[in-house]
Amino acid sequence: MKQNIYDNEQFFKGYEEIRNRKFNYNNLLERPNFLALIPDLHGKVILDVGCGKGDFANDCMEKGALQVDGIDISRNMIAAAKRNYKKERLHFQQAAIEDFVLSDRQYDIICSSLVLHYVADFEAVIEKISNAMRPNGIFLFSIEHPISTANKGKEQWIKDEAGELSHFVVDRYQHEGERSQHWLVDNVVMYHRSMATIVNTLIGSNLQIEKIIEPVPTNEAIEYLPTLQKEHRRPSFLIMRARKSN
Amino acid sequence: MKQNIYDNEQFFKGYEEIRNRKFNYNNLLERPNFLALIPDLHGKVILDVGCGKGDFANDCMEKGALQVDGIDISRNMIAAAKRNYKKERLHFQQAAIEDFVLSDRQYDIICSSLVLHYVADFEAVIEKISNAMRPNGIFLFSIEHPISTANKGKEQWIKDEAGELSHFVVDRYQHEGERSQHWLVDNVVMYHRSMATIVNTLIGSNLQIEKIIEPVPTNEAIEYLPTLQKEHRRPSFLIMRARKSN
Repeated sequence: MKQNIYDNEQFFKGYEEIRNRKFNYNNLLERPNFLALIPDLHGKVILDVGCGKGDFANDCMEKGALQVDGIDISRNMIAAAKRNYKKERLHFQQAAIEDFVLSDRQYDIICSSLVLHYVADFEAVIEKISNAMRPNGIFLFSIEHPISTANKGKEQWIKDEAGELSHFVVDRYQHEGERSQHWLVDNVVMYHRSMATIVNTLIGSNLQIEKIIEPVPTNEAIEYLPTLQKEHRRPSFLIMRARKSN
Repeated sequence: MKQNIYDNEQFFKGYEEIRNRKFNYNNLLERPNFLALIPDLHGKVILDVGCGKGDFANDCMEKGALQVDGIDISRNMIAAAKRNYKKERLHFQQAAIEDFVLSDRQYDIICSSLVLHYVADFEAVIEKISNAMRPNGIFLFSIEHPISTANKGKEQWIKDEAGELSHFVVDRYQHEGERSQHWLVDNVVMYHRSMATIVNTLIGSNLQIEKIIEPVPTNEAIEYLPTLQKEHRRPSFLIMRARKSN
Protein backbone atom coordinates (compact mmCIF):
# COMPACT_ATOMS: atom_id res chain seq x y z
CA MET A 1 0.00 0.00 0.00
CA LYS A 2 1.49 3.33 -1.00
CA GLN A 3 1.41 5.86 1.77
CA ASN A 4 -0.56 9.03 1.17
CA ILE A 5 0.06 10.75 4.46
CA TYR A 6 -0.24 14.22 2.94
CA ASP A 7 -3.99 13.72 2.51
CA ASN A 8 -4.37 13.02 6.22
CA GLU A 9 -6.02 16.23 7.40
CA GLN A 10 -4.13 16.53 10.67
CA PHE A 11 -0.81 15.78 8.99
CA PHE A 12 -1.38 18.21 6.14
CA LYS A 13 -2.27 21.00 8.56
CA GLY A 14 0.89 20.41 10.62
CA TYR A 15 3.01 20.10 7.49
CA GLU A 16 1.62 23.36 6.09
CA GLU A 17 2.41 25.10 9.35
CA ILE A 18 6.06 23.97 9.21
CA ARG A 19 6.53 24.79 5.54
CA ASN A 20 4.97 28.21 6.01
CA ARG A 21 7.50 29.12 8.69
CA LYS A 22 9.92 31.69 7.39
CA PHE A 23 12.89 29.53 8.36
CA ASN A 24 12.80 25.75 8.12
CA TYR A 25 15.06 22.85 7.18
CA ASN A 26 13.76 22.90 3.65
CA ASN A 27 14.40 26.47 2.68
CA LEU A 28 17.63 26.87 4.69
CA LEU A 29 19.28 23.50 4.07
CA GLU A 30 17.74 21.16 1.52
CA ARG A 31 16.57 23.68 -1.10
CA PRO A 32 19.77 25.68 -1.62
CA ASN A 33 21.88 22.53 -1.89
CA PHE A 34 19.39 20.82 -4.20
CA LEU A 35 19.13 23.87 -6.46
CA ALA A 36 22.92 24.15 -6.66
CA LEU A 37 22.94 20.88 -8.63
CA ILE A 38 20.22 21.80 -11.13
CA PRO A 39 21.61 21.88 -14.68
CA ASP A 40 20.66 24.39 -17.37
CA LEU A 41 16.94 23.97 -17.98
CA HIS A 42 16.53 25.66 -21.34
CA GLY A 43 14.48 23.54 -23.71
CA LYS A 44 14.42 20.60 -21.33
CA VAL A 45 11.58 18.16 -20.69
CA ILE A 46 11.35 17.60 -16.95
CA LEU A 47 9.54 15.34 -14.50
CA ASP A 48 9.18 16.37 -10.87
CA VAL A 49 8.37 13.35 -8.71
CA GLY A 50 6.53 14.52 -5.61
CA CYS A 51 5.92 18.01 -6.93
CA GLY A 52 3.84 19.14 -3.95
CA LYS A 53 2.18 22.46 -4.70
CA GLY A 54 4.10 22.91 -7.92
CA ASP A 55 6.50 25.69 -6.91
CA PHE A 56 9.59 23.96 -8.25
CA ALA A 57 7.85 22.77 -11.43
CA ASN A 58 6.75 26.33 -12.10
CA ASP A 59 10.27 27.65 -11.38
CA CYS A 60 11.60 25.24 -14.01
CA MET A 61 9.19 26.72 -16.57
CA GLU A 62 10.32 30.21 -15.60
CA LYS A 63 13.93 29.13 -16.15
CA GLY A 64 13.28 28.07 -19.71
CA ALA A 65 12.11 24.45 -19.53
CA LEU A 66 10.15 23.28 -22.58
CA GLN A 67 7.76 21.08 -20.58
CA VAL A 68 7.37 20.12 -16.93
CA ASP A 69 5.26 17.25 -15.61
CA GLY A 70 4.63 17.26 -11.88
CA ILE A 71 3.18 14.27 -10.08
CA ASP A 72 2.27 13.85 -6.44
CA ILE A 73 0.42 11.17 -4.55
CA SER A 74 -1.52 13.81 -2.62
CA ARG A 75 -4.84 15.12 -3.91
CA ASN A 76 -4.39 18.16 -1.65
CA MET A 77 -1.04 19.00 -3.18
CA ILE A 78 -2.09 18.52 -6.80
CA ALA A 79 -5.25 20.59 -6.24
CA ALA A 80 -3.08 23.41 -4.88
CA ALA A 81 -0.57 23.09 -7.74
CA LYS A 82 -3.32 23.32 -10.34
CA ARG A 83 -4.82 26.35 -8.59
CA ASN A 84 -1.46 28.09 -8.22
CA TYR A 85 0.09 27.59 -11.63
CA LYS A 86 -1.58 27.54 -15.01
CA LYS A 87 0.81 27.40 -17.94
CA GLU A 88 0.88 25.65 -21.25
CA ARG A 89 3.22 22.65 -21.10
CA LEU A 90 3.08 22.60 -17.29
CA HIS A 91 1.08 19.55 -16.23
CA PHE A 92 0.12 18.27 -12.81
CA GLN A 93 -1.31 14.85 -12.07
CA GLN A 94 -2.23 13.01 -8.91
CA ALA A 95 -0.25 9.79 -9.00
CA ALA A 96 2.29 7.79 -7.07
CA ILE A 97 5.54 7.28 -8.97
CA GLU A 98 4.86 3.54 -8.73
CA ASP A 99 1.65 3.97 -10.76
CA PHE A 100 2.55 6.80 -13.11
CA VAL A 101 2.87 5.68 -16.69
CA LEU A 102 6.27 6.55 -18.11
CA SER A 103 7.46 6.06 -21.67
CA ASP A 104 11.04 5.18 -22.53
CA ARG A 105 13.50 8.05 -22.99
CA GLN A 106 10.90 10.68 -22.30
CA TYR A 107 12.70 13.13 -20.01
CA ASP A 108 15.93 15.13 -20.01
CA ILE A 109 15.77 15.74 -16.28
CA ILE A 110 13.97 13.94 -13.47
CA CYS A 111 13.92 15.55 -10.03
CA SER A 112 12.63 14.33 -6.71
CA SER A 113 12.89 16.16 -3.43
CA LEU A 114 12.50 14.26 -0.15
CA VAL A 115 10.16 11.64 -1.56
CA LEU A 116 12.07 8.45 -2.26
CA HIS A 117 12.42 7.43 1.40
CA TYR A 118 8.65 6.83 1.30
CA VAL A 119 8.97 4.33 -1.55
CA ALA A 120 8.83 0.65 -0.58
CA ASP A 121 10.46 -0.78 -3.73
CA PHE A 122 13.37 1.57 -4.33
CA GLU A 123 15.00 -0.60 -6.99
CA ALA A 124 11.85 -0.79 -9.12
CA VAL A 125 11.28 2.96 -8.91
CA ILE A 126 14.88 3.80 -9.80
CA GLU A 127 14.77 1.41 -12.75
CA LYS A 128 11.52 3.01 -13.91
CA ILE A 129 13.00 6.49 -13.59
CA SER A 130 16.15 5.49 -15.45
CA ASN A 131 14.17 3.96 -18.31
CA ALA A 132 12.19 7.19 -18.70
CA MET A 133 15.38 9.25 -19.07
CA ARG A 134 17.05 10.22 -22.28
CA PRO A 135 20.73 9.30 -22.73
CA ASN A 136 22.90 11.77 -20.84
CA GLY A 137 19.85 12.90 -18.85
CA ILE A 138 20.13 14.08 -15.25
CA PHE A 139 18.49 12.52 -12.21
CA LEU A 140 18.63 14.75 -9.15
CA PHE A 141 17.11 13.71 -5.85
CA SER A 142 17.23 14.30 -2.13
CA ILE A 143 16.38 11.77 0.53
CA GLU A 144 16.72 11.45 4.27
CA HIS A 145 20.29 10.43 5.03
CA PRO A 146 20.93 6.77 5.99
CA ILE A 147 22.67 7.96 9.17
CA SER A 148 19.45 9.72 10.05
CA THR A 149 17.01 6.96 9.05
CA ALA A 150 18.93 4.00 10.53
CA ASN A 151 17.43 4.14 14.03
CA LYS A 152 14.38 6.27 13.27
CA GLY A 153 11.42 5.33 15.44
CA LYS A 154 13.78 4.47 18.32
CA GLU A 155 16.45 6.49 20.13
CA GLN A 156 18.12 9.16 18.01
CA TRP A 157 19.33 12.23 19.91
CA ILE A 158 20.40 11.35 23.45
CA LYS A 159 20.26 14.12 26.04
CA ASP A 160 22.58 14.50 29.01
CA GLU A 161 21.48 15.09 32.58
CA ALA A 162 21.21 18.82 31.99
CA GLY A 163 18.82 18.20 29.12
CA GLU A 164 21.39 19.21 26.49
CA LEU A 165 21.92 17.12 23.37
CA SER A 166 24.69 14.67 24.14
CA HIS A 167 25.02 12.72 20.92
CA PHE A 168 23.24 11.04 18.02
CA VAL A 169 22.58 7.30 17.81
CA VAL A 170 23.27 5.09 14.82
CA ASP A 171 21.90 1.58 15.15
CA ARG A 172 20.27 -1.07 12.92
CA TYR A 173 22.20 0.40 9.98
CA GLN A 174 22.26 -2.85 8.01
CA HIS A 175 18.63 -3.69 8.79
CA GLU A 176 17.01 -2.05 5.81
CA GLY A 177 13.28 -1.56 5.59
CA GLU A 178 10.35 0.14 7.27
CA ARG A 179 10.81 2.74 9.96
CA SER A 180 7.65 3.97 11.61
CA GLN A 181 7.74 7.24 13.52
CA HIS A 182 5.58 9.92 14.96
CA TRP A 183 5.96 13.04 12.80
CA LEU A 184 2.92 15.29 13.15
CA VAL A 185 0.77 12.14 13.36
CA ASP A 186 1.43 8.56 14.44
CA ASN A 187 2.84 5.87 12.18
CA VAL A 188 4.40 7.85 9.38
CA VAL A 189 6.20 5.07 7.53
CA MET A 190 9.47 5.53 5.69
CA TYR A 191 12.22 3.19 4.54
CA HIS A 192 15.81 3.03 5.68
CA ARG A 193 18.39 2.01 3.11
CA SER A 194 22.17 1.92 3.45
CA MET A 195 24.41 4.23 1.44
CA ALA A 196 25.68 1.18 -0.45
CA THR A 197 22.15 0.19 -1.48
CA ILE A 198 21.29 3.69 -2.66
CA VAL A 199 24.48 4.13 -4.69
CA ASN A 200 24.58 0.59 -6.11
CA THR A 201 20.91 0.75 -7.13
CA LEU A 202 21.56 3.88 -9.17
CA ILE A 203 24.66 2.41 -10.78
CA GLY A 204 22.78 -0.82 -11.51
CA SER A 205 20.23 1.23 -13.44
CA ASN A 206 22.87 2.96 -15.58
CA LEU A 207 22.85 6.11 -13.50
CA GLN A 208 26.41 7.32 -12.94
CA ILE A 209 26.94 9.29 -9.74
CA GLU A 210 28.16 12.82 -10.49
CA LYS A 211 27.95 14.44 -7.08
CA ILE A 212 26.87 13.73 -3.53
CA ILE A 213 25.98 16.45 -1.04
CA GLU A 214 25.48 15.94 2.69
CA PRO A 215 24.25 19.46 3.34
CA VAL A 216 26.05 21.62 5.89
CA PRO A 217 24.21 24.74 7.08
CA THR A 218 25.77 28.14 6.50
CA ASN A 219 26.49 30.29 9.56
CA GLU A 220 23.76 32.62 8.39
CA ALA A 221 21.24 29.78 8.29
CA ILE A 222 22.20 28.77 11.83
CA GLU A 223 21.57 32.35 12.97
CA TYR A 224 18.06 32.15 11.54
CA LEU A 225 17.38 28.65 12.87
CA PRO A 226 19.80 27.63 15.65
CA THR A 227 18.75 23.94 15.68
CA LEU A 228 20.50 23.65 12.30
CA GLN A 229 23.74 23.56 14.35
CA LYS A 230 22.99 19.84 14.79
CA GLU A 231 23.67 19.30 11.09
CA HIS A 232 27.38 19.65 11.84
CA ARG A 233 27.08 16.64 14.10
CA ARG A 234 25.25 14.29 11.73
CA PRO A 235 23.63 14.87 8.32
CA SER A 236 19.82 14.87 7.94
CA PHE A 237 19.77 14.86 4.16
CA LEU A 238 21.52 13.25 1.25
CA ILE A 239 21.41 14.83 -2.20
CA MET A 240 22.66 13.06 -5.32
CA ARG A 241 23.03 13.93 -8.94
CA ALA A 242 23.45 11.13 -11.45
CA ARG A 243 23.69 10.96 -15.23
CA LYS A 244 22.07 8.37 -17.46
CA SER A 245 24.96 6.59 -19.06
CA ASN A 246 23.45 5.28 -22.24
CA MET B 1 54.62 14.44 8.77
CA LYS B 2 53.52 11.09 7.43
CA GLN B 3 52.73 8.59 10.13
CA ASN B 4 54.78 5.42 10.24
CA ILE B 5 53.12 3.79 13.18
CA TYR B 6 53.86 0.28 11.91
CA ASP B 7 57.54 0.77 12.68
CA ASN B 8 56.74 1.55 16.30
CA GLU B 9 57.92 -1.62 18.02
CA GLN B 10 55.08 -1.86 20.52
CA PHE B 11 52.47 -1.16 17.84
CA PHE B 12 53.92 -3.65 15.40
CA LYS B 13 53.96 -6.37 18.02
CA GLY B 14 50.32 -5.76 18.95
CA TYR B 15 49.31 -5.53 15.29
CA GLU B 16 51.06 -8.80 14.50
CA GLU B 17 49.28 -10.46 17.39
CA ILE B 18 45.87 -9.37 16.05
CA ARG B 19 46.59 -10.27 12.45
CA ASN B 20 47.91 -13.67 13.49
CA ARG B 21 44.66 -14.53 15.24
CA LYS B 22 42.79 -17.16 13.29
CA PHE B 23 39.67 -14.97 13.21
CA ASN B 24 39.86 -11.20 12.93
CA TYR B 25 38.02 -8.33 11.26
CA ASN B 26 40.38 -8.46 8.31
CA ASN B 27 40.06 -12.05 7.28
CA LEU B 28 36.35 -12.42 8.16
CA LEU B 29 35.00 -9.07 6.97
CA GLU B 30 37.28 -6.77 5.00
CA ARG B 31 39.20 -9.34 2.93
CA PRO B 32 36.31 -11.37 1.46
CA ASN B 33 34.41 -8.22 0.48
CA PHE B 34 37.51 -6.56 -0.95
CA LEU B 35 38.47 -9.65 -2.96
CA ALA B 36 34.93 -9.93 -4.34
CA LEU B 37 35.54 -6.70 -6.28
CA ILE B 38 38.91 -7.68 -7.77
CA PRO B 39 38.71 -7.83 -11.58
CA ASP B 40 40.45 -10.39 -13.76
CA LEU B 41 44.18 -9.94 -13.16
CA HIS B 42 45.64 -11.72 -16.19
CA GLY B 43 48.34 -9.65 -17.82
CA LYS B 44 47.63 -6.65 -15.60
CA VAL B 45 50.14 -4.19 -14.16
CA ILE B 46 49.18 -3.55 -10.55
CA LEU B 47 50.14 -1.22 -7.71
CA ASP B 48 49.32 -2.19 -4.12
CA VAL B 49 49.42 0.88 -1.89
CA GLY B 50 50.15 -0.23 1.65
CA CYS B 51 51.17 -3.74 0.67
CA GLY B 52 52.16 -4.82 4.18
CA LYS B 53 53.99 -8.13 4.07
CA GLY B 54 53.17 -8.64 0.41
CA ASP B 55 50.57 -11.43 0.66
CA PHE B 56 48.06 -9.73 -1.63
CA ALA B 57 50.74 -8.60 -4.11
CA ASN B 58 51.98 -12.17 -4.32
CA ASP B 59 48.40 -13.47 -4.73
CA CYS B 60 47.99 -11.13 -7.69
CA MET B 61 51.08 -12.65 -9.32
CA GLU B 62 49.69 -16.13 -8.68
CA LYS B 63 46.45 -15.07 -10.37
CA GLY B 64 48.20 -14.08 -13.58
CA ALA B 65 49.25 -10.45 -13.08
CA LEU B 66 52.08 -9.33 -15.36
CA GLN B 67 53.71 -7.09 -12.77
CA VAL B 68 52.93 -6.06 -9.22
CA ASP B 69 54.53 -3.16 -7.35
CA GLY B 70 53.92 -3.09 -3.63
CA ILE B 71 54.76 -0.05 -1.52
CA ASP B 72 54.47 0.43 2.21
CA ILE B 73 55.64 3.16 4.54
CA SER B 74 56.85 0.57 7.04
CA ARG B 75 60.40 -0.74 6.92
CA ASN B 76 59.25 -3.75 8.95
CA MET B 77 56.56 -4.65 6.45
CA ILE B 78 58.71 -4.23 3.36
CA ALA B 79 61.52 -6.27 4.92
CA ALA B 80 59.02 -9.07 5.58
CA ALA B 81 57.55 -8.81 2.06
CA LYS B 82 60.99 -9.08 0.48
CA ARG B 83 61.83 -12.05 2.69
CA ASN B 84 58.53 -13.82 1.99
CA TYR B 85 58.16 -13.40 -1.74
CA LYS B 86 60.79 -13.40 -4.40
CA LYS B 87 59.46 -13.32 -7.93
CA GLU B 88 60.44 -11.65 -11.13
CA ARG B 89 58.17 -8.66 -11.80
CA LEU B 90 57.12 -8.53 -8.13
CA HIS B 91 58.68 -5.44 -6.57
CA PHE B 92 58.52 -4.10 -3.05
CA GLN B 93 59.65 -0.66 -1.97
CA GLN B 94 59.54 1.22 1.29
CA ALA B 95 57.71 4.45 0.51
CA ALA B 96 54.68 6.49 1.50
CA ILE B 97 52.22 6.93 -1.36
CA GLU B 98 52.79 10.68 -0.99
CA ASP B 99 56.48 10.22 -1.88
CA PHE B 100 56.34 7.33 -4.33
CA VAL B 101 57.19 8.39 -7.86
CA LEU B 102 54.41 7.49 -10.27
CA SER B 103 54.38 7.90 -14.03
CA ASP B 104 51.27 8.75 -16.00
CA ARG B 105 49.09 5.85 -17.16
CA GLN B 106 51.34 3.25 -15.63
CA TYR B 107 48.89 0.85 -13.98
CA ASP B 108 45.82 -1.17 -14.96
CA ILE B 109 44.79 -1.69 -11.36
CA ILE B 110 45.61 0.17 -8.16
CA CYS B 111 44.56 -1.37 -4.85
CA SER B 112 44.75 -0.06 -1.33
CA SER B 113 43.44 -1.84 1.73
CA LEU B 114 42.78 0.12 4.94
CA VAL B 115 45.46 2.72 4.29
CA LEU B 116 43.88 5.88 2.95
CA HIS B 117 42.37 6.96 6.28
CA TYR B 118 45.97 7.56 7.36
CA VAL B 119 46.60 10.00 4.52
CA ALA B 120 46.43 13.72 5.41
CA ASP B 121 45.89 15.07 1.89
CA PHE B 122 43.32 12.69 0.43
CA GLU B 123 42.62 14.80 -2.64
CA ALA B 124 46.29 14.98 -3.66
CA VAL B 125 46.77 11.23 -3.21
CA ILE B 126 43.62 10.35 -5.18
CA GLU B 127 44.68 12.68 -7.99
CA LYS B 128 48.12 11.08 -8.02
CA ILE B 129 46.61 7.59 -8.12
CA SER B 130 44.20 8.56 -10.90
CA ASN B 131 46.98 10.03 -13.01
CA ALA B 132 48.97 6.81 -12.69
CA MET B 133 46.06 4.74 -14.01
CA ARG B 134 45.49 3.69 -17.57
CA PRO B 135 42.17 4.58 -19.19
CA ASN B 136 39.48 2.15 -18.02
CA GLY B 137 41.73 1.06 -15.15
CA ILE B 138 40.32 -0.04 -11.80
CA PHE B 139 40.93 1.61 -8.44
CA LEU B 140 39.82 -0.57 -5.53
CA PHE B 141 40.22 0.54 -1.94
CA SER B 142 38.93 0.02 1.55
CA ILE B 143 38.90 2.61 4.30
CA GLU B 144 37.39 3.00 7.74
CA HIS B 145 33.75 4.02 7.29
CA PRO B 146 32.86 7.69 7.92
CA ILE B 147 30.20 6.57 10.41
CA SER B 148 32.98 4.84 12.30
CA THR B 149 35.61 7.58 12.07
CA ALA B 150 33.33 10.56 12.81
CA ASN B 151 33.64 10.49 16.59
CA LYS B 152 36.77 8.37 16.89
CA GLY B 153 38.88 9.34 19.87
CA LYS B 154 35.73 10.26 21.83
CA GLU B 155 32.62 8.26 22.73
CA GLN B 156 31.71 5.54 20.24
CA TRP B 157 29.95 2.50 21.73
CA ILE B 158 27.82 3.46 24.73
CA LYS B 159 27.14 0.76 27.31
CA ASP B 160 23.99 0.45 29.38
CA GLU B 161 23.92 -0.07 33.14
CA ALA B 162 24.34 -3.82 32.75
CA GLY B 163 27.51 -3.25 30.73
CA GLU B 164 25.89 -4.33 27.47
CA LEU B 165 26.38 -2.32 24.29
CA SER B 166 23.53 0.15 24.11
CA HIS B 167 24.22 2.04 20.90
CA PHE B 168 26.85 3.66 18.68
CA VAL B 169 27.56 7.39 18.62
CA VAL B 170 27.85 9.54 15.53
CA ASP B 171 29.05 13.05 16.20
CA ARG B 172 31.32 15.67 14.56
CA TYR B 173 30.43 14.13 11.17
CA GLN B 174 31.01 17.33 9.24
CA HIS B 175 34.20 18.20 11.11
CA GLU B 176 36.66 16.52 8.83
CA GLY B 177 40.27 16.03 9.81
CA GLU B 178 42.51 14.39 12.37
CA ARG B 179 41.21 11.85 14.82
CA SER B 180 43.68 10.66 17.41
CA GLN B 181 42.98 7.43 19.24
CA HIS B 182 44.56 4.78 21.35
CA TRP B 183 44.88 1.63 19.25
CA LEU B 184 47.63 -0.62 20.58
CA VAL B 185 49.61 2.55 21.39
CA ASP B 186 48.67 6.15 22.16
CA ASN B 187 48.04 8.77 19.51
CA VAL B 188 47.45 6.74 16.39
CA VAL B 189 46.34 9.49 14.01
CA MET B 190 43.82 8.96 11.24
CA TYR B 191 41.59 11.27 9.23
CA HIS B 192 37.83 11.45 9.18
CA ARG B 193 36.20 12.41 5.89
CA SER B 194 32.51 12.48 5.03
CA MET B 195 31.02 10.13 2.45
CA ALA B 196 30.42 13.14 0.20
CA THR B 197 34.10 14.11 0.33
CA ILE B 198 35.29 10.59 -0.45
CA VAL B 199 32.90 10.11 -3.37
CA ASN B 200 33.27 13.61 -4.82
CA THR B 201 37.07 13.45 -4.61
CA LEU B 202 37.09 10.28 -6.69
CA ILE B 203 34.67 11.70 -9.24
CA GLY B 204 36.68 14.93 -9.40
CA SER B 205 39.71 12.84 -10.37
CA ASN B 206 37.87 11.06 -13.20
CA LEU B 207 37.23 7.95 -11.17
CA GLN B 208 33.67 6.76 -11.74
CA ILE B 209 32.16 4.83 -8.84
CA GLU B 210 31.22 1.29 -9.87
CA LYS B 211 30.33 -0.26 -6.54
CA ILE B 212 30.23 0.52 -2.84
CA ILE B 213 30.28 -2.15 -0.14
CA GLU B 214 29.58 -1.55 3.54
CA PRO B 215 30.54 -5.06 4.63
CA VAL B 216 28.01 -7.18 6.52
CA PRO B 217 29.36 -10.26 8.28
CA THR B 218 28.06 -13.68 7.32
CA ASN B 219 26.39 -15.75 10.03
CA GLU B 220 29.34 -18.12 9.85
CA ALA B 221 31.77 -15.26 10.47
CA ILE B 222 29.75 -14.18 13.52
CA GLU B 223 29.97 -17.72 14.88
CA TYR B 224 33.75 -17.54 14.64
CA LEU B 225 33.99 -14.01 16.03
CA PRO B 226 30.81 -12.94 17.86
CA THR B 227 31.80 -9.26 18.15
CA LEU B 228 31.20 -9.05 14.39
CA GLN B 229 27.50 -8.92 15.30
CA LYS B 230 28.09 -5.19 15.88
CA GLU B 231 28.61 -4.73 12.15
CA HIS B 232 24.85 -5.09 11.68
CA ARG B 233 24.43 -2.02 13.86
CA ARG B 234 26.92 0.28 12.15
CA PRO B 235 29.55 -0.35 9.44
CA SER B 236 33.27 -0.35 10.29
CA PHE B 237 34.52 -0.42 6.73
CA LEU B 238 33.80 1.12 3.36
CA ILE B 239 34.99 -0.53 0.16
CA MET B 240 34.79 1.18 -3.21
CA ARG B 241 35.59 0.22 -6.75
CA ALA B 242 35.99 2.98 -9.31
CA ARG B 243 36.96 3.08 -12.98
CA LYS B 244 39.23 5.61 -14.63
CA SER B 245 36.98 7.34 -17.08
CA ASN B 246 39.43 8.62 -19.66
